[in-house]
Amino acid sequence: MSEPIKIMGISGSYDNNSANSRLIELLFQRCSDLGAITYVWDNKNKPLPLVGEDGSWDNEYVQEFQELASSVDAFVLSSPEFHGTMSGVMKNNLDWIYSKHCSGKIFGLMSTLGGQSTSNTLNHMRIVVRWIHGWAVPEQIAVPDIKNAFDDNGQIIDEKIIERLDNLAESIIINSKKLRR
Amino acid sequence: MSEPIKIMGISGSYDNNSANSRLIELLFQRCSDLGAITYVWDNKNKPLPLVGEDGSWDNEYVQEFQELASSVDAFVLSSPEFHGTMSGVMKNNLDWIYSKHCSGKIFGLMSTLGGQSTSNTLNHMRIVVRWIHGWAVPEQIAVPDIKNAFDDNGQIIDEKIIERLDNLAESIIINSKKLRR
Amino acid sequence: MSEPIKIMGISGSYDNNSANSRLIELLFQRCSDLGAITYVWDNKNKPLPLVGEDGSWDNEYVQEFQELASSVDAFVLSSPEFHGTMSGVMKNNLDWIYSKHCSGKIFGLMSTLGGQSTSNTLNHMRIVVRWIHGWAVPEQIAVPDIKNAFDDNGQIIDEKIIERLDNLAESIIINSKKLRR
Amino acid sequence: MSEPIKIMGISGSYDNNSANSRLIELLFQRCSDLGAITYVWDNKNKPLPLVGEDGSWDNEYVQEFQELASSVDAFVLSSPEFHGTMSGVMKNNLDWIYSKHCSGKIFGLMSTLGGQSTSNTLNHMRIVVRWIHGWAVPEQIAVPDIKNAFDDNGQIIDEKIIERLDNLAESIIINSKKLRR
Repeated sequence: MSEPIKIMGISGSYDNNSANSRLIELLFQRCSDLGAITYVWDNKNKPLPLVGEDGSWDNEYVQEFQELASSVDAFVLSSPEFHGTMSGVMKNNLDWIYSKHCSGKIFGLMSTLGGQSTSNTLNHMRIVVRWIHGWAVPEQIAVPDIKNAFDDNGQIIDEKIIERLDNLAESIIINSKKLRR
Repeated sequence: MSEPIKIMGISGSYDNNSANSRLIELLFQRCSDLGAITYVWDNKNKPLPLVGEDGSWDNEYVQEFQELASSVDAFVLSSPEFHGTMSGVMKNNLDWIYSKHCSGKIFGLMSTLGGQSTSNTLNHMRIVVRWIHGWAVPEQIAVPDIKNAFDDNGQIIDEKIIERLDNLAESIIINSKKLRR
Repeated sequence: MSEPIKIMGISGSYDNNSANSRLIELLFQRCSDLGAITYVWDNKNKPLPLVGEDGSWDNEYVQEFQELASSVDAFVLSSPEFHGTMSGVMKNNLDWIYSKHCSGKIFGLMSTLGGQSTSNTLNHMRIVVRWIHGWAVPEQIAVPDIKNAFDDNGQIIDEKIIERLDNLAESIIINSKKLRR
Repeated sequence: MSEPIKIMGISGSYDNNSANSRLIELLFQRCSDLGAITYVWDNKNKPLPLVGEDGSWDNEYVQEFQELASSVDAFVLSSPEFHGTMSGVMKNNLDWIYSKHCSGKIFGLMSTLGGQSTSNTLNHMRIVVRWIHGWAVPEQIAVPDIKNAFDDNGQIIDEKIIERLDNLAESIIINSKKLRR
């Protein structure tokens, strides 16, 4: 039997109670059901410094972040869209991982919008993933009108998005297995 | 006589001694010669918090950043390209200004590359500028091979880039005057 | 009294009865009300050849297209989104105009979507506009679910999009006047 | 022994003697050496109509184009950059293939530039590939200053680009095998 797929989730929201953290959680439930082991980076309790801050290069969280990134087979990125692209929190997190941590690994992409749907954040994250030699799967999710996207139990209301979560989880697992050497 | 154009410079490098800070300096010399008043935001001594950090919404530097943004006629953004787009430092800075600070104002865009030229950072910043209802001028500058771009006196070596600096400064000033109500 | 603003409309649909042609028509009614003179390029009766086709460089429609482009103050581009970017018809049209026809002129951007809203086509057209040294105004329109966007009289149903048409027309006129030398 | 990988090459230049056709040729020599069977679409002798032209939906070349696309395992796209994105010829070609022809298949991307390097065309083609549910490999090639890129024998002069051709061919073959069900 093959080793389980390990996946690291990175949110573009600072707060662990954010919609983006919740999206990662919902996706990771599906990934776990498919046999994966999942890890979510905790921005709030282990914030990464801005690149260039005093001591940033030796920061203990940065080291832990990079070690976790090195150890996994796949990544999930979930970011709010601020001003037509990913958040500064997401970009700063991504600035701390390089192709040596990510090359040849699968990435799943999700984005939340305050208003109507756009794909800017997904597109720009897809370009970043290419630049660190990762593989963003074609399946991706943009959740518009995020304030009204969840019911009282924290479940996604729109059935099309639920289906997209199913498909994204499946694609991450299947294709991580295919690409893994 | 009309009021002088006021311009705010925002760097995507944390360090004040960076190539991006130097590019802003060189551009602002030209803008000053054309009668503008310039201000450079100091990332190192007045770092903006990540959006969502405890206390970030009441942070004194954020307030000062937003007040300066409100008071100027134009902006210059200069960012290193990390992983195919602007740095986290730049994006986090931009996350703190909104259309109410920037609408209808001129933006000049510059980017530095470690290797060969690309326009990713310029393109993505252009999209951000649109999302905060600013106007990015067509003139823009990407400086490839940044480690070898300056001579010992901190002057740009490539004459084409020097010409681009002249053109960018001129475009910012002329078009800020045209668009200003 | 100043000369009226002249605007050229370019559709990314081949058919004159398309949603994109209709969007241009609706926008141009508003522009006319604001004193502009408008021209719509007729893809169906004056199709531009693919760049490089035998005789394409001397094609009479190409010459007429370029002369019209040279004579106007502003452009409106309206394209369907095919495969996450503007249509081939739109790109081929744009391939036939250069900065010598467009430099310093205002562009208004519109896009139609079969399904949910995205901004890909608007973003990519914004980049093209920059490359031919034009100025795309911040106001822009994406019309999702285009098959259900119009009522029986060919009027847009969604009031937010109607408002966006008003704002885009106004921005094109006002800013063309400001930028015109 | 497994079936050989079949690859379809699509150029964004109309002319078969273009730099883009030559790039496909050079890449396909390498792919053939790795056991692949290659097909190049002939824009000049089998031009695809603009989408929407009279008879375009029943055009015989369109049918042949789609049948070839359906039959292959992978694609190579090579486009000149016109006005900051792929050519109209490339986009019009891509408009004629859909996810039903391309889903889950590998794409290799190349672009030629008249002047300095940019990645706009590569980035925009990467987005198109995602929209038709293909997989663009991380390896990609932008060839700047295309008029001086080849020697008298039609070989690429810059050794880094030669290495990139090797890597791109290898990635297409290896990953097509991995992803093929």
